[in-house]
Amino acid sequence: MKKRFILLGLYSCFGFCQSTDEQQLKDIYQQALTNSECYSWLDHLTNTIGGRLTGSANAQKAVDYTQSELQKLGLDRVYLQEVMVPHWERGAKETAYIEISKKKISVPVCALGMSVATPEKGILAEVIEVHSIKELETLGTEKIKGKIVFFNRPMENALIEPMEAYRGAGDQRGSGPREASKYGAIGVIVRSLSLRLDDFPHTGATRYGDIPKTQYIPGAAISTKGAELLSKSLKVNPHLKFFLKQSCKKYEDVLSYNVIGEIKGTEHPEKIMVVGGHLDSWDLGTGAQDDGAGVVQSMEVLRLFKILNYKPKNTIRAVLFMNEENGVRGGNKYNEQAQANKENHIFALESDSGGFTPRGFTIDADDTSLAKIQGWKPLFEPYQLHLFMKGHSGSDVEPLKSDRIVKVGLKPDTQRYFDYHHAANDTFEAVNKRELELGAAAMASLMYLMDQYGID
Amino acid sequence: MKKRFILLGLYSCFGFCQSTDEQQLKDIYQQALTNSECYSWLDHLTNTIGGRLTGSANAQKAVDYTQSELQKLGLDRVYLQEVMVPHWERGAKETAYIEISKKKISVPVCALGMSVATPEKGILAEVIEVHSIKELETLGTEKIKGKIVFFNRPMENALIEPMEAYRGAGDQRGSGPREASKYGAIGVIVRSLSLRLDDFPHTGATRYGDIPKTQYIPGAAISTKGAELLSKSLKVNPHLKFFLKQSCKKYEDVLSYNVIGEIKGTEHPEKIMVVGGHLDSWDLGTGAQDDGAGVVQSMEVLRLFKILNYKPKNTIRAVLFMNEENGVRGGNKYNEQAQANKENHIFALESDSGGFTPRGFTIDADDTSLAKIQGWKPLFEPYQLHLFMKGHSGSDVEPLKSDRIVKVGLKPDTQRYFDYHHAANDTFEAVNKRELELGAAAMASLMYLMDQYGID
Repeated sequence: MKKRFILLGLYSCFGFCQSTDEQQLKDIYQQALTNSECYSWLDHLTNTIGGRLTGSANAQKAVDYTQSELQKLGLDRVYLQEVMVPHWERGAKETAYIEISKKKISVPVCALGMSVATPEKGILAEVIEVHSIKELETLGTEKIKGKIVFFNRPMENALIEPMEAYRGAGDQRGSGPREASKYGAIGVIVRSLSLRLDDFPHTGATRYGDIPKTQYIPGAAISTKGAELLSKSLKVNPHLKFFLKQSCKKYEDVLSYNVIGEIKGTEHPEKIMVVGGHLDSWDLGTGAQDDGAGVVQSMEVLRLFKILNYKPKNTIRAVLFMNEENGVRGGNKYNEQAQANKENHIFALESDSGGFTPRGFTIDADDTSLAKIQGWKPLFEPYQLHLFMKGHSGSDVEPLKSDRIVKVGLKPDTQRYFDYHHAANDTFEAVNKRELELGAAAMASLMYLMDQYGID
Repeated sequence: MKKRFILLGLYSCFGFCQSTDEQQLKDIYQQALTNSECYSWLDHLTNTIGGRLTGSANAQKAVDYTQSELQKLGLDRVYLQEVMVPHWERGAKETAYIEISKKKISVPVCALGMSVATPEKGILAEVIEVHSIKELETLGTEKIKGKIVFFNRPMENALIEPMEAYRGAGDQRGSGPREASKYGAIGVIVRSLSLRLDDFPHTGATRYGDIPKTQYIPGAAISTKGAELLSKSLKVNPHLKFFLKQSCKKYEDVLSYNVIGEIKGTEHPEKIMVVGGHLDSWDLGTGAQDDGAGVVQSMEVLRLFKILNYKPKNTIRAVLFMNEENGVRGGNKYNEQAQANKENHIFALESDSGGFTPRGFTIDADDTSLAKIQGWKPLFEPYQLHLFMKGHSGSDVEPLKSDRIVKVGLKPDTQRYFDYHHAANDTFEAVNKRELELGAAAMASLMYLMDQYGID
C-alpha cells in the first residue's frame, strides 16, 4: 500500500488516478480470482439450502446463513431489516395434457408465481391461441369466454440482447391471466420465456392487479417445446382440449428480512453506497443464476475490501434483498427505511442478471455522472469490460430515492441466462466459478472508483 | 438487395460503406439467429458420430458427413484433400492409484495423446513432484532416475485470459515426458490443464521429439483434484508410490482427408479466402467445443452467404482440417497443396477456441491490415464484439503461406473453455445454440468485410 501513496503524489488525478487505481483494480482481481469465498457461499445457498421462495423455510435459512457469513467478515455492523412478505406456495406438482379425441398428450407446465389454483379436479377446455394482449380485444368475449387462452409469442431470437427479448415478451406472463379474465377466459397458458426449445417450464410472477378476486383465473407456463406442440396441434385440431391442474395457494403475509452488512465510511460515514442482489428465488431450481450469484458477489465485494484492507471514504452496505421475485417488498422496505432515517444514498449497484462473464454496467444516472463512469472505461479494458451504457439498474435498488443517486446494474453476458431463468435447471452447476468471481471483481472495482471519485 | 445498391451510390466508402455494410451484417445476424443449421450439424457430429480421433472410424464418418452436408448447400465445388495422418489409439481405460503403505487410492487419469503404453502390468514407482521442466535440470538424474515425475504447475487463475494461462502451463504436457526421460524417469504424470478443481482428466498431445524410441516413457494427465491429492499426500508421505497402467498405441499412418467446400469468386476467383475449424477431436468427449463448434460455424458461413445470395468477389473456401490435435497434418497439407498449385491466399479465419459468445478477433497481420480491420469495430459494436487485437490465428491456418495474407482467429469468451477442453465433458450440452450462432455470424461478417475491402 505504501508504494501506492508515493505514486499518488506523482500523478494528477482528473477523474481517476491512473497508476493508483490500476493497481487497486489489479489487487481486487487478483484476490477475487485466487482467494474468493463467493463460489462456496453459492454452493451452500443452492445445494445445502436450495430454492428460496419468499416466505418459505428455505428463505429464512438463507437469511440466517448469509447473516452468519457476513458476521465472520469483521464488518462494522451486520443486521436484519424486517419486512412483511407474500407467502405463496406451489403445492403439488402441476399436471397438464392436450386432449385430442380422447388421446392425452402430457406437456410440461408449472404454475405462474402468485397464480390461483385450478378447481381441485382441474380445468378442461378448448384453447384459443393468441400472440399479444391486444389480440384479446380483437377476439372479444364471444370467442374467449369459457376457454383457456394460450399466449404463444416467443422471445425474439434475432435480438442480440436476450434481456430485450425477455422484456418484449414478458407482458404475456405478467398480465396475461388478468387481461384474459376480463374476456371470460377460465385459464391461461403462457409460452415459457426462454430462447431455447426444451422441456423446462419457466415460472415467474403474474399480477392480477385490481380485478376482483372472484375473477382471478389460473395461469401456468408451458415449456417452449410444449408450446410448439400445442400450437401445431391446434392448427390440425382447433377444437382440441387442454387440461390443467394446479394447487398453488397464497397465504397470509409473513415476516421476513433483508440482510445487511456494513463497512463504515472513514470520511463521509453519512454517505451510503449499496451493493446488492436478492436472496429469494423461485422454487423450481435452486436460484443459482437468479440470484444466488448476485447475493454472493455482493458479499464478496465487502470481503474483498476487508482482505485488501481498503477503508472506504463512504459507508458501504451489502444489502441482500428479500422478495424480488414476487413483490419487491425488500427493495421497497429498504427505501422506506432510508427515507424514514433520512439516509443519504449516493450509489447503488445491483447484480441480478446472472453470474456469467461480466461485460460492463447499465447505468441509471444523469448525464454528468454517466460520463464520469464512462470515463473509467480504460481502467476496465484489461478486464474485458466494454459496455457502459445508460440503462436499468435492478428491481431492488430501483425504488431507492435520494437527492442525487447513481444506480447501476452489473451487465454480464446473458446469451444463455434465459436457458435457466426461473426454471428447474437454475442450479449450482449452471454457474462457473471464474465467471462469478470476475463479476464480483468488476463490482468491487466500480464500488472502489465510486467511493474515490463518485458524484460530488 | 436492390435497395442496398441504391444506397451504395449515396455514400462514399472510406474503409467501409456504413449503411450497406450495416445492413449486410444485420442480415447475416438475423439469418444466423433465426435460421441456422450449425447447431443441428453439431448435434450430429457429437451425438450421432461422437469423438473423432484422427485416424479413427469416427473421423472418417465426420469426413463423409460434412462432405455430404456441404454438397447440399449448392456450392460451386465440394471436395476432399488427401492427407496421411497419425493413428494413435487409447486402448483400454487407464488405471492409476496412489499407494501408501499398501492402501490404494484411485485417481482419475488418462493417457496423453501420442504417449506410449506402460508395460502390461503397469508401472509402480516413487514420485517426484516438480513445477517446471527447468526444475528437472536442478534435480538431475540422481533424484529422478527410476521415478515417476509429477508436473504440478497449475494454470494461473489470476490471469484474465485463460488462453494465456493455458499457454503458460502447456509445456509440462507437451514436453514433460520427453524431458523427464532424459533424466531416467520411467513415467510422467501431468496436472490437467484446467482452471477448475474437478475429477476430469484432460488429455492432449505430448511430443517425444527426437529422443530415441527406446527412451519414450508413458505420460498421463491426472485430474486437478487428483493432482491436489497427490501433492498433499507427497508432503506427508514423500516415499509413497504411484501406479499407472495404460495401453495406448501408435499404429501406421493412415489416409484421411481435409473437407473443402468452395464458392467461386465473381471478380477475383484466383484470390482465395479460407474459413475453417478442425474435424478431428480427442476421444474422451465428443469434441463439441473443440472443435465441432469451429467446423459447423465455418460451414454456416458458406450457408449464410448462399441463403443471403451473397456472391463474393473472391473465392471463399470452408476448410475442415483433419488432425489438428496430434499433428496438424491437415493444416500442413493444405498449405503444401496451395504452394504446389500456386494458389493466392489473401485471408484465413479459424475458429478453434470454442463456441462461446464471440468477443472479437485475434489478428495476425501487418500493421496496415490490422488497422484496417480495427477500423471496422463500429460495425461490430451493435453485436458486442470489442476485441480486435494482434494475436494468434489458429493452428490449422498458421502454416498457410502467401505473398500477403491476413490470418485471424475468432475470439470467443473462454472463461469456461478449459472446463471442457480435451475432457470427457466436452459434449454437445456444453455448447449453447445462440452463442454458437453468434460466433458464426461474427465470422461471416468479417469474411464479408474482408471480401469487400480486404488487403490492398
